[in-house]
Amino acid sequence: MRRTRVNELFGIEHPIVQAGMIWVSGAKLAAAAAEAGALGLIGAGSMTPELLRAQIRKARTLTARPFGVNLPIFHRYAEEMVPIILEEGVRIVFTSAGSPKKYTPTFKAAGIVVAHVVSTPELAKKCEDAGVDAVVAEGFEAGGHNGRDELTTMVLVPQAVDAVKLPVIAAGGIGDGRAMAAAFALGAEGVQVGSRFVCAAESSAHAAFKAKVVEAGSTDTFLVLKPIVPVRLIKNSFCRRVLDIEAAGADKEKLSELLGRGRARLGMLDGDVEEGELEIGQVSGLIRDVAPAAEIVRRLVEECRAAIASLS
Amino acid sequence: MRRTRVNELFGIEHPIVQAGMIWVSGAKLAAAAAEAGALGLIGAGSMTPELLRAQIRKARTLTARPFGVNLPIFHRYAEEMVPIILEEGVRIVFTSAGSPKKYTPTFKAAGIVVAHVVSTPELAKKCEDAGVDAVVAEGFEAGGHNGRDELTTMVLVPQAVDAVKLPVIAAGGIGDGRAMAAAFALGAEGVQVGSRFVCAAESSAHAAFKAKVVEAGSTDTFLVLKPIVPVRLIKNSFCRRVLDIEAAGADKEKLSELLGRGRARLGMLDGDVEEGELEIGQVSGLIRDVAPAAEIVRRLVEECRAAIASLS
Repeated sequence: MRRTRVNELFGIEHPIVQAGMIWVSGAKLAAAAAEAGALGLIGAGSMTPELLRAQIRKARTLTARPFGVNLPIFHRYAEEMVPIILEEGVRIVFTSAGSPKKYTPTFKAAGIVVAHVVSTPELAKKCEDAGVDAVVAEGFEAGGHNGRDELTTMVLVPQAVDAVKLPVIAAGGIGDGRAMAAAFALGAEGVQVGSRFVCAAESSAHAAFKAKVVEAGSTDTFLVLKPIVPVRLIKNSFCRRVLDIEAAGADKEKLSELLGRGRARLGMLDGDVEEGELEIGQVSGLIRDVAPAAEIVRRLVEECRAAIASLS
Repeated sequence: MRRTRVNELFGIEHPIVQAGMIWVSGAKLAAAAAEAGALGLIGAGSMTPELLRAQIRKARTLTARPFGVNLPIFHRYAEEMVPIILEEGVRIVFTSAGSPKKYTPTFKAAGIVVAHVVSTPELAKKCEDAGVDAVVAEGFEAGGHNGRDELTTMVLVPQAVDAVKLPVIAAGGIGDGRAMAAAFALGAEGVQVGSRFVCAAESSAHAAFKAKVVEAGSTDTFLVLKPIVPVRLIKNSFCRRVLDIEAAGADKEKLSELLGRGRARLGMLDGDVEEGELEIGQVSGLIRDVAPAAEIVRRLVEECRAAIASLS
């Protein structure tokens, strides 16, 4: 497997990042990804500050390899989580959903490697200006929360590569080694993989949610709730109700009311796969099993090698 | 440049198809693309039957190389155009926007090579069952009319490749050789390129439309008019009015009224770049000049070679 600046920056064997995801990526998944030679990320987005601290400590007992934390900047506990990340000696932080200016100086001053998730090349440039070390360019096909401009991975990645000197990590639609090779062809130096790791044996996703992702066909996700915040979900009963009231011209208020609170936890962690919000990418159509993280990484690397070999 | 079944099927030097586009791809562009070693397509979608006949004859005076016709099946003149295509001895037809069963038997009986444009892997399978020779898998980032399931090129192409034994031609988001190499990594055996050829010197697009595409930034297109038929447009005054009334919850009727008739011609051929409908792909953010078709093909091939070389 080729080595890039992404390998060097994070000190990892394969230029693969296991995405930090709410309700899915705790210490167990992050450590398993790290042990497999990828970068594992603990997803702080669904945690309380004290749970985040406990998960960081737990991950350290499970692996001596590098892992990091994904911190959504809009998170209601973000402000409290920053000192915890510093106190616990985390070396790598991925920030998302907010300005890269907000915490980058603090993290950089502590010697932390910072990556930030972007949905446009313009935001990639802002990251560079803010002193970030790498950008994750995430396309429209990605699961969960999503940019408003709807740029796909195929068009976003090369434009981000052209916009900055920083290494670009491609995200959105990458579930196998063919897409990983494609990302490299577009100029990315690494990939961030989310949905495929939802179906890792070590992910905290409920077994019923994993089964739903394995069953999902190619057209079983959709980007909904655009007036509130765009999010890609599996089309279950809840999602179909959202689609129906959106088609009828529902406004922000009606959608917020329907969404209510705790829908993501209900679906992803508690396993109510009809009434919960199931955040997953379009690539779920290509996911056909639950497998250990090590096996997922092994397949990605092998398929990527094969795809590259087939090109020459 | 690698040779694939797409080269063999169409008898072309490079596995590149110049997309058949309304108001843009007449005989001049198709012949220029053919002379450059790609497959040129005459876009019948905006023509009358007699204009199509004249354009086929004209293309033949301009090139001895293979070219084809793109026929949208929903076209009000489609039924009249089929005998013209047969009478004029066209050897290659790309059909789109309708069932592949409708005209494939007629064309195949005349020895014509048939490709069909699809937006899902399920439709790719239907094409195979209908006896089509190749499928064009076109993603959400593509310009103009678009599938309802919003699958992007990155996730659609590998799923189409897995679904059929036919050669898959990737479309949507392919404006340079990096994306062409990425498409090959995903398993495609050829690429269909639209937006980049809108800005070919030989395209019939109005100079003001070409200038608008060259100026367009990365986030300057959007998929609108979903309740009527989803179409990707440049965000000009007309498009912004559509976005406004869509945000206000407009229904089919209101949108149809706003759209009116002849908007695409007004913008793309007549050059009213504010009040016309300008169909173009997300990749317009990467298009920085108007260039001869031969130069566009040369760059695609050279950049694709360089991208592949960089992977090994």
